Amino acid sequence: MVLQKALSSTTLLTSQLRKQCRFLSQLVPGEPSSPSVNTKTIPGPKSQKLMADMNSIQQAGSVQLFGDYEKSLGNYLVDVDGNVLLDSYTQISSMPVGYNHPDILKILAEPDSIRTLANRPALGVFPGGDWPDKLKSVLLNVAPPGLNKVMTMMCGSCSNENAFKVIFIWYMRKIRGFDKKISDLDMESCMINLPPGSPNLSILSFKGAFHGRTLGCLTTTHSKPIHKLDIPAFDWPIAHFPQYKYPLSEHVKENAAEDNKCLAEVEELIEKYAKKNPVAGVIAEPIQSEGGDNEGSPEFFQGLQKICKNRGIAFLIDEVQTGGGPTGKMWCHEHFNLPSPPDIVTFSKKMQLGGFYHTNEMMVDKPYRIFNTWMGDPGKLVILEGVLNVIKKHKLLDNVQETGDVLKSGLHNLEKKYPDLINSVRGRGTFLAFNAKNTNLRDSIVTNLKMQGVQSGGCGEMSVRLRPALIFQPHHAEIFLDKLNNVLSQLK
Amino acid sequence: MVLQKALSSTTLLTSQLRKQCRFLSQLVPGEPSSPSVNTKTIPGPKSQKLMADMNSIQQAGSVQLFGDYEKSLGNYLVDVDGNVLLDSYTQISSMPVGYNHPDILKILAEPDSIRTLANRPALGVFPGGDWPDKLKSVLLNVAPPGLNKVMTMMCGSCSNENAFKVIFIWYMRKIRGFDKKISDLDMESCMINLPPGSPNLSILSFKGAFHGRTLGCLTTTHSKPIHKLDIPAFDWPIAHFPQYKYPLSEHVKENAAEDNKCLAEVEELIEKYAKKNPVAGVIAEPIQSEGGDNEGSPEFFQGLQKICKNRGIAFLIDEVQTGGGPTGKMWCHEHFNLPSPPDIVTFSKKMQLGGFYHTNEMMVDKPYRIFNTWMGDPGKLVILEGVLNVIKKHKLLDNVQETGDVLKSGLHNLEKKYPDLINSVRGRGTFLAFNAKNTNLRDSIVTNLKMQGVQSGGCGEMSVRLRPALIFQPHHAEIFLDKLNNVLSQLK
Repeated sequence: MVLQKALSSTTLLTSQLRKQCRFLSQLVPGEPSSPSVNTKTIPGPKSQKLMADMNSIQQAGSVQLFGDYEKSLGNYLVDVDGNVLLDSYTQISSMPVGYNHPDILKILAEPDSIRTLANRPALGVFPGGDWPDKLKSVLLNVAPPGLNKVMTMMCGSCSNENAFKVIFIWYMRKIRGFDKKISDLDMESCMINLPPGSPNLSILSFKGAFHGRTLGCLTTTHSKPIHKLDIPAFDWPIAHFPQYKYPLSEHVKENAAEDNKCLAEVEELIEKYAKKNPVAGVIAEPIQSEGGDNEGSPEFFQGLQKICKNRGIAFLIDEVQTGGGPTGKMWCHEHFNLPSPPDIVTFSKKMQLGGFYHTNEMMVDKPYRIFNTWMGDPGKLVILEGVLNVIKKHKLLDNVQETGDVLKSGLHNLEKKYPDLINSVRGRGTFLAFNAKNTNLRDSIVTNLKMQGVQSGGCGEMSVRLRPALIFQPHHAEIFLDKLNNVLSQLK
Repeated sequence: MVLQKALSSTTLLTSQLRKQCRFLSQLVPGEPSSPSVNTKTIPGPKSQKLMADMNSIQQAGSVQLFGDYEKSLGNYLVDVDGNVLLDSYTQISSMPVGYNHPDILKILAEPDSIRTLANRPALGVFPGGDWPDKLKSVLLNVAPPGLNKVMTMMCGSCSNENAFKVIFIWYMRKIRGFDKKISDLDMESCMINLPPGSPNLSILSFKGAFHGRTLGCLTTTHSKPIHKLDIPAFDWPIAHFPQYKYPLSEHVKENAAEDNKCLAEVEELIEKYAKKNPVAGVIAEPIQSEGGDNEGSPEFFQGLQKICKNRGIAFLIDEVQTGGGPTGKMWCHEHFNLPSPPDIVTFSKKMQLGGFYHTNEMMVDKPYRIFNTWMGDPGKLVILEGVLNVIKKHKLLDNVQETGDVLKSGLHNLEKKYPDLINSVRGRGTFLAFNAKNTNLRDSIVTNLKMQGVQSGGCGEMSVRLRPALIFQPHHAEIFLDKLNNVLSQLK
């Protein structure tokens, strides 16, 4: 009895210690303790030379610096000039456990992994014998609650394009009658891009949305003109996405009214398009990322789902950027308490490969309707499996919450300290953002942060977004906040 | 002098011996010497069980068998039931040097490769310091003659979608005036999918074409209704692709007339669409693959290019399936003697990653116009580099020609021997095809070939296509022909 009690208190102590260790220790051994900048500009001279080189091969004006991926480690991106940057942007939010994570290096060096990479099959025709098990143990193991089907793809755009197709196919089967034979007219007309075989259907999207850049996705993307200019688009409806006032707790009524206004517009647009291009599906990001980290409230998403259900329209949540843990849950829409699961959820980025989860009802009726040569990549699932094991081993979703709390309260302090410079701190977990007063100031913050040794990212017109890895710990948050304070005090 | 002569004749002898060795020896040591089938059906019982499993997770009706990628080697695909199949289809033409090639396994096991795989950057923003050099030494090193710019993507569909965008951007810059400022109206209207910012432009494609399955690509795909049914499409023009009579040498006049008829229709369609959806680009496969291995003659492609040049339209050759060596040249359009290079050439499959080559003129003017998170994958370039080294080391383009000659003359013999069963043998290198009398017979040939231990693939309505790896040697061709003879003699 005494022994049992002693053991139990030891367990408790161990657990508390472990929690504290998570705050204090490095999740990636050997990670630098702080950033350091040793060139007068970033890009430094070596990066600039390489930029000129790359611009002779392609339009490479978007390149910010060249990485040294042998030296980069954990949360620290080292560039070819030897600058050591604390990375709060992580390759546009696509590096879940940072650089050169020892567990990922280890799993990739295993003969099984090498074989998987060397023998990439056409997964829709000749998958490996372990593929169904891998789909279950890796992808379905972290599926959004209620969704037990999954298709794999290569990237976010392909995932959304194919999710649209799943929606169109489901919608037309419903219209036609699920058991009805397909007419010759349908079969013939689709071959020349004409209705009824190629029907005039649409996907409703939101202003400020980003769902990818291929022609279907791009029609639903409305974040920046440079993405869309000169590219043909479908005539599909676009509704306003809620624009909240911050802090949320002080603007409850106004923000609820904003939700209702946007939901009413969705209903109007669905009716307006009913004759020319009926709405078969609605697509939304839980937090519009590229468009400026615009949050949708749980109530807004509940309302959207309700409209879709009432009108027999599919509800697609695009979790390409929000999925994989950065909001403190595996999927951001888990924060929304939806009464039933969304019909489709797309993913990519932190998940390493693209794809989508869906309900039984959305399953296509025939093979080859959703199909391509590779249908994803088992080599990327090897990495994802390693990533999910690291998330579990180090309880990284808890870490995201803890670090997120430190970051968010620190940002709130800074917006109080510098009210003329920044405002509207928002987000969930470490998926956070704030606004600068204007675009120029935002750009200066991002540039000056870099010279302080912090890689960050802009989004929308005047926002700074935080997209650290899931291994970004409270001590990294403190460094970030300290450097941001330096930048803001200089810009004041 | 005597010594020199001796040395020179030794060199000659060595070279001849090497050539003979290429015929006799195995390019992949330890490869099985012949196929073997030990189940009553393929899929065998283990594959069938896995199929049921996979169908509970997704619509997986297209799966033919499950591979054992530990045991597969070289040209031989081993399935989970232990059947050893000579693979003339190679994962829909995407395995250039076969299974478990020792050089590819070796390169993937190197620490540098593992690091590259573990640290996948956003190539458009933070590429590794070695990236410009890799683009040059790997991708530009095998660029189609005259094209010195390259963009990387992930798959064939994304490559074509982005190539379309490059064309639209170039076309509108030309219309607008290359130096002219973009108007506010352009910037605003594109954000809501309306002209002039989202212009009504089109890409002209051909009946029978396959260019991918995302919504832009799918509009230019016209191979099978199952790909297109129920999916909205743009109103873009579709011309007839030449349908030749075989053997070509006996139908020169008729086939030339067919070319001219198709070219005239292209011109008509360009004029017809000039007002509503002007044609900005023309896309064509050198050999329409999914659509039935329909060849276009050099004269047809020369004519197409001439029309495009005369009318200020971009000419895009889709080498996703034909590129990377299977026709005996790196790019199939090199067989066409075009007076100048095409404007854009897209690739994927055998090249391991997607992308496109283009001329200086097609380069986009601003960053972020052609952009996405990953912009390809350095991990796939590691494999491609290995593949290109194997091609060079074993002179695989020569091997393709030699093996192709054996295969094609063997197929000609078989079409003479079984004129009521097969006809229209065609193609270049080992990129060959023949027609069966009808669809049922074609399906029987593919099924029965499999029971003889040969994996082949169908395409179009009644064609069988050969898509072996570049390491498919004359002795593999003899096995293929022998098994096909068995099948045809039984079906007779």
